[in-house]
Amino acid sequence: MIKLVGIGPGNLQYLTLRAKEVLKNCDVVIGYEKYVEQIAELTKSKETYKYKMGQEEERCKRAVELSKEGKDVCLVCGGDPGIYSLSSIILNLTDDVEIIPGISALNACASILGSPLSNDFVVLSFSDYNVDISEIKKRVELACKADFVMVIYNPISRVRLKKSKEIFQVIVDNKPSKTKVALVKNCYRADFSMRIIELSQIFENIDFIDMNTTMIVGNKYTYENFGKLITPRWYK
Amino acid sequence: MIKLVGIGPGNLQYLTLRAKEVLKNCDVVIGYEKYVEQIAELTKSKETYKYKMGQEEERCKRAVELSKEGKDVCLVCGGDPGIYSLSSIILNLTDDVEIIPGISALNACASILGSPLSNDFVVLSFSDYNVDISEIKKRVELACKADFVMVIYNPISRVRLKKSKEIFQVIVDNKPSKTKVALVKNCYRADFSMRIIELSQIFENIDFIDMNTTMIVGNKYTYENFGKLITPRWYK
Repeated sequence: MIKLVGIGPGNLQYLTLRAKEVLKNCDVVIGYEKYVEQIAELTKSKETYKYKMGQEEERCKRAVELSKEGKDVCLVCGGDPGIYSLSSIILNLTDDVEIIPGISALNACASILGSPLSNDFVVLSFSDYNVDISEIKKRVELACKADFVMVIYNPISRVRLKKSKEIFQVIVDNKPSKTKVALVKNCYRADFSMRIIELSQIFENIDFIDMNTTMIVGNKYTYENFGKLITPRWYK
Repeated sequence: MIKLVGIGPGNLQYLTLRAKEVLKNCDVVIGYEKYVEQIAELTKSKETYKYKMGQEEERCKRAVELSKEGKDVCLVCGGDPGIYSLSSIILNLTDDVEIIPGISALNACASILGSPLSNDFVVLSFSDYNVDISEIKKRVELACKADFVMVIYNPISRVRLKKSKEIFQVIVDNKPSKTKVALVKNCYRADFSMRIIELSQIFENIDFIDMNTTMIVGNKYTYENFGKLITPRWYK
């Protein structure tokens, strides 16, 4: 059985006990090169296969092949395997998989920021590699109208800067300009940095935002206290 | 400094290494009685304070008092402290808190179901204790129109069965009747059970749903394969 393992936000302290156990006991580790390197101290002397970004299907196919050879395979992902990651791809190939959930960027960033997700929220990716940009804009507009807090994965990449700006404009057009926005980069890693801004300042902070940034856009109740971002659990 | 610790879905294997470490090293454990008991094997001989459901503010105030006395306090939550839990409450009292993220019900249920959350999704609570039911219905309707997968916490309690049925009706009125719906109860616990149904069968399954059930309502792309629930990551 393949173990599909969420390794969390990067710092090994946020691995689950189950993830650590299966990484320790497996024969083979497969994954995106950066993630395989992050867990290297736990997987010394294992057979490892490192892949480049974009080779998601190749990784999954290799995992299935090696598992069929009788090897105990850990296929590793950053964050949680179920959120913009490999679980849907591997399950199209085989059902012989144990999925080990991980601390995703939304959980990690929320814990660093304070409490932005204490009430209803929506999780969106701005990557138009998989979804048409018109569809993303429609979803963003409806999320604004519902006043959901928004967690945004993949907000910008260099190849779609113009499109990302168009999506940000939808938010600017549909939410109060004073809405709190958090930009969190490399959460729980050595090169961690973050900013809390207001929505009206989004375009002047555009150079700070990249593929490793998770954005959280507050709702009308979200406020700052002690330098933390808080969405109250209670509105009444 | 108070440690606010997410203990995950209940099974200790899904604790993070960081959570285990702080539980081992603290002087005092405070929390809802069920959660304090779940981690008892890690906190033997500690001073413990167990609270009833509903006493969220009391727990947080006690944690602050004991911390001021110089004790190293772990305030524990099920799942993740940031999702419908204690983080916003404690941060209204003090900023002297480390929040340790946990595997939330959405991560845990997704891993058991297969891959329902591989694309954009919304997280909602149907409890109208904190939010007016008219507001919940509006959000649900907009989430349906955006075709977000929906993760629903607290779908039903005995005291608001009629109101929950009204919210389910909003979903029935706004999504195709064949939409896949998962009902997951006590994920990763001994008394775990689950059902995958179609939206048209929701009312005939109402007796299965309770406060310990997490519901996941698929989008138009969500399908079943090998008995797993999958929302493709790629729509194109």
